[in-house]
Amino acid sequence: MVHRNKWRTGNSASNSTTVQDEPAQRELRFTTTRSEKSPLNLWRLLIGRPLRTSESAKERINPIEGLSALSLDALTSVAYGPEALLSVLVVGGATALNAMLPITIVIVILLAILVTSYRQVIEAYPTGGGAYAVSKANLGKNISLVAAAALIVDYTLTVAVSIAAGVGALTSAFPQLAPQTVPPCLAFLAILTLMNLRGLGETARVFLLPTALFIIGIYAVIVLGLIHPLALSAKDLTFHITSKTTQTLGILLILKAFSAGCSALTGVEAIANGVPLYKEPRVPRAKKTEMLLGLILGSMLIGLAVLANRFHVAPNATQTALSQIMAITMGRNFAFLALSIIITLVLGLAANTSFGGLPILASLLAQDNFLPHRFALKGERQVFSTGIWTLSFFSALLLIGVNGNTNNLIPMFAIGVFTGFTLSQIGLVVHWKRTKPSRWKRKAAINGFGATVTGVSTLIFLLTKFLNGAWLVVIAVPLIILLFLRIKNYYLRVSTSLQLGTIPSKPKSQETTVIIPISQISKLTQYAIGEALSLGQKAIALYVYNTDPTLDESQKLTPTKKDDLAKEWMKWNPGIQLEIIESDYSSIVKPIVDYIDQLRNSIDNQIVVLIPVIIPDKGRYRILHNQTDLLLSASLSKRSDLIVARAKYRLDRTER
Amino acid sequence: MVHRNKWRTGNSASNSTTVQDEPAQRELRFTTTRSEKSPLNLWRLLIGRPLRTSESAKERINPIEGLSALSLDALTSVAYGPEALLSVLVVGGATALNAMLPITIVIVILLAILVTSYRQVIEAYPTGGGAYAVSKANLGKNISLVAAAALIVDYTLTVAVSIAAGVGALTSAFPQLAPQTVPPCLAFLAILTLMNLRGLGETARVFLLPTALFIIGIYAVIVLGLIHPLALSAKDLTFHITSKTTQTLGILLILKAFSAGCSALTGVEAIANGVPLYKEPRVPRAKKTEMLLGLILGSMLIGLAVLANRFHVAPNATQTALSQIMAITMGRNFAFLALSIIITLVLGLAANTSFGGLPILASLLAQDNFLPHRFALKGERQVFSTGIWTLSFFSALLLIGVNGNTNNLIPMFAIGVFTGFTLSQIGLVVHWKRTKPSRWKRKAAINGFGATVTGVSTLIFLLTKFLNGAWLVVIAVPLIILLFLRIKNYYLRVSTSLQLGTIPSKPKSQETTVIIPISQISKLTQYAIGEALSLGQKAIALYVYNTDPTLDESQKLTPTKKDDLAKEWMKWNPGIQLEIIESDYSSIVKPIVDYIDQLRNSIDNQIVVLIPVIIPDKGRYRILHNQTDLLLSASLSKRSDLIVARAKYRLDRTER
Repeated sequence: MVHRNKWRTGNSASNSTTVQDEPAQRELRFTTTRSEKSPLNLWRLLIGRPLRTSESAKERINPIEGLSALSLDALTSVAYGPEALLSVLVVGGATALNAMLPITIVIVILLAILVTSYRQVIEAYPTGGGAYAVSKANLGKNISLVAAAALIVDYTLTVAVSIAAGVGALTSAFPQLAPQTVPPCLAFLAILTLMNLRGLGETARVFLLPTALFIIGIYAVIVLGLIHPLALSAKDLTFHITSKTTQTLGILLILKAFSAGCSALTGVEAIANGVPLYKEPRVPRAKKTEMLLGLILGSMLIGLAVLANRFHVAPNATQTALSQIMAITMGRNFAFLALSIIITLVLGLAANTSFGGLPILASLLAQDNFLPHRFALKGERQVFSTGIWTLSFFSALLLIGVNGNTNNLIPMFAIGVFTGFTLSQIGLVVHWKRTKPSRWKRKAAINGFGATVTGVSTLIFLLTKFLNGAWLVVIAVPLIILLFLRIKNYYLRVSTSLQLGTIPSKPKSQETTVIIPISQISKLTQYAIGEALSLGQKAIALYVYNTDPTLDESQKLTPTKKDDLAKEWMKWNPGIQLEIIESDYSSIVKPIVDYIDQLRNSIDNQIVVLIPVIIPDKGRYRILHNQTDLLLSASLSKRSDLIVARAKYRLDRTER
Repeated sequence: MVHRNKWRTGNSASNSTTVQDEPAQRELRFTTTRSEKSPLNLWRLLIGRPLRTSESAKERINPIEGLSALSLDALTSVAYGPEALLSVLVVGGATALNAMLPITIVIVILLAILVTSYRQVIEAYPTGGGAYAVSKANLGKNISLVAAAALIVDYTLTVAVSIAAGVGALTSAFPQLAPQTVPPCLAFLAILTLMNLRGLGETARVFLLPTALFIIGIYAVIVLGLIHPLALSAKDLTFHITSKTTQTLGILLILKAFSAGCSALTGVEAIANGVPLYKEPRVPRAKKTEMLLGLILGSMLIGLAVLANRFHVAPNATQTALSQIMAITMGRNFAFLALSIIITLVLGLAANTSFGGLPILASLLAQDNFLPHRFALKGERQVFSTGIWTLSFFSALLLIGVNGNTNNLIPMFAIGVFTGFTLSQIGLVVHWKRTKPSRWKRKAAINGFGATVTGVSTLIFLLTKFLNGAWLVVIAVPLIILLFLRIKNYYLRVSTSLQLGTIPSKPKSQETTVIIPISQISKLTQYAIGEALSLGQKAIALYVYNTDPTLDESQKLTPTKKDDLAKEWMKWNPGIQLEIIESDYSSIVKPIVDYIDQLRNSIDNQIVVLIPVIIPDKGRYRILHNQTDLLLSASLSKRSDLIVARAKYRLDRTER
């Protein structure tokens, strides 16, 4: 028989369905008193109260918030992408620097391909996961795990590198902080973690202002630069040199420069990974952010490349290329300082991109049994808190491990992303071939081109940076895949062992014997015996009497003497037997465990060990109580042949 | 009816007495199979297996071992006591140094009084506790708490100061270690802690060799010094100067020098505090150690004072007085180096004196309800492990707090001891007056003299060192006493609340309803329902169905779909009802707690929440399971209106 109860819990409506194999024996009328107070008040203050799904829309984002929550990693790459490109070109001499603009144009074309294909990914795989989801659907399990592992490595590195970049800029402004890079990094990480545990929506709104200032600032620099007299006069000269120099540059140098400049594309995938973070309808919203990101990032890159060319900007140990351009266009005034600070801040905030992507990816992996199931459980605030904590933990380890100096991490950083790019492009080619929509051949060709370019870039990254740290990625990715497979294998074994999917035989009940360790006759003992008699057919009180011959009577650990206890027990006559164990172990735990073992071996009953514990009226008094509980619970914690429970007696209890 | 069972547990004989109010319904025949394996194998390796009281004699000490276990604090004071005395005298000019010998003689007389009275304390209070026990019996509760608090402060300081002194000498030998004083201090402390958790007997035997080498070495120095040509020739001159100079020295300077020199007496009380650590018969053995300590320390002090006098040793920033004497008598050869190293080592080992004394003192205080009762519980190795851990913890805090530099702690160090000295002497005066043994007036006079001298010394310490750190003791002691009194007061309230000493009314049993949160139908569910039916008259299976409308079906947290589950449940028909809760909270904990609250308010039954958990075959798989258990247990941990238990299902389980 199935019937449905509808009742109100607190102020929310819940439905309850009762499935009962016998006629309804009961008709519960649920009342509505319930205390809302939580013990962890400080935590509540930091994280906020539990959210219902219906409320969690607040914590979901719109297209503009998507820019601040998921796109800062990509947008801020204008601060280091052009720099990386110039650093390679300068090897070819000063004139080689003029190759920057054409190379940037190719990069922006690649950006357009990526943006287009990730918009297609969003449409086809709205549950998020990006490259993992695409390659799982189109390229098979093993390749999807490569994508997942590469993304996990990339996400963790992104957090560490972004935070260290932000804090690094801070410490160069305040040199007295310099020797302590790690503590401010960890503090920043802690704040990010807490914000993400609250929910991405609030985080996105907090980041909105710096993001807007950053975008406006960079555009202002570009516009001011384009109308700058120095730029206007340099125009013709530049184009002349460019056409001449391309011939003299080796193809390898150009490829290397292209790959280095591609680091400006990292983060483009984050929106597709985090689609579920959007408000409904999420697909068009996410696609809109992806488009905005492409337009803003592309125009910024080209604008800055034009200016770098016209101002003859060269890499410089003390000032980044972006900063040089800013100094020329704006002058070294208050606006220059303000924009520098904003760039620093958003560099740090870019770490948040990972917090948007990794927890969702981990939840998908957990649903597929490749990660512990708890990664798929949402916490009270509707976020995947296990993923957030795990990302924080490993990022913190990384920051501590490299002592806040992430220079060596930067080369590794792009490999994961580009592996993901390549696999999702290849996945899309297969997708088009499989689904065959209109003009699928053209679509497949574009993605095929994208896959080739990003694949080559991945290889160049790997080869040129192998000794600089990329080897670590090459080691980490297979290890992570191995972990995935072992976890999957284990869950398979469990599911076989639990006979999931089959109907088990009917449960059997047994007689129950309850054992209560006691130390004296008191209200606590009385309460525990009452609880025990409710639980079992039979209850035994157990008292350990220490026979240490070297102790004076005054030093005995047991507060009540043996014979007195036996006499009082008979006078009390509480309805259960008392067992007095004389032991010459000083700890009372061992004799109790020995007794339980003996009992276990002699009867086939279910055995419950019911430990009487006192719940003091104030938490700080806990240390004064229940030492037996701690020790005995620890000794019995792994026993599956008995049930350990506590009879909790409140000191401020009133008689029921 | 009371009857007695005798059975064998493992290889030990235990007695069990059964007190039963009804005719014996059962006759258990205990079999003897029992697994001895413990999960904490590394810990077992470090600490050793649990000891029976009958075995713990091994861990108890004899008079000679008492020297290494409890007397190093006193013996090693020859390394700094004479130094402290000279440092004060040198203020009165070079000739004032000649007052050293007469002052040392007075100190040794005081030592004799202290040794005599502590031998009397051992006899009268063989349960240990020294000054606390004496003053509790003779001077009342409040004064005994002053003694206890002073001793606790002293014990903690002793550990920190001794370890830092040992490590300090080490780092001056290996200057490259100098900036990292704290880590080696903590490592040393960790080793001492582990050794004491194993037992004092083994510790004492390990310390025996360095202690013997130390005593032999110092005697060798004294003998070599006395027959040294420089000493022989200086003899007459010295006595001449001494008699002349005493007149010119102010009485205050002499008093200050005397007090400073008295720091050589710290540690004399430790044996009386630790009497229970001795093998039976413990009183004569402890008295023997006390006597040995007095003889050795007294003769060393006088011998060194004579040599200091004859060699005109003056305080020196780079070398201690003892080291100067050693250099003159032995020359700077291999023997000098070896003895220096031994002195360094035993200075560190002197910290062990506190580990002998504090845990016993704390256990006595716990028995008197002034400290948490767990301080009175012996651990598996027959040691008071809570006291040992607590002492380690606070010593470590102190070492970290002063960054391993204990110079400022040394003045505080003697105040606690001398407060103890004074109170135990006064206590003995009262004791003699009360018990009136033969020649009690003479005994009382000696102790009265001792009390006056040590009392004056305490005052001088306090006044001269008040600003150097002694104020901390003056603050700490009342705070500790306040803590004692609050704990006592709390235990009194508990005992009233539990109605200790009265026979409570008969326990009442209730109907029991068991709630089992489930996530699917499996062997685990079957097992948990069987356990639940054994426990209660009624059981309810609870399934939370997440109604998040924004999730795709594939993203649902609940692995089984609602309607399928209801259908399968009816097909299975396990004998209990299934309750399906639809919830729009993402966490399944809140709906379950809400349901329990509703049930609690609607019925008066005892409610058991039985959480099905999987015990994986290997510990490392735990992270893959039971997230619901963790979250639900945490939410319900403070509820005393229900019993939380776990139905533990082993994956490698075979059908019973």
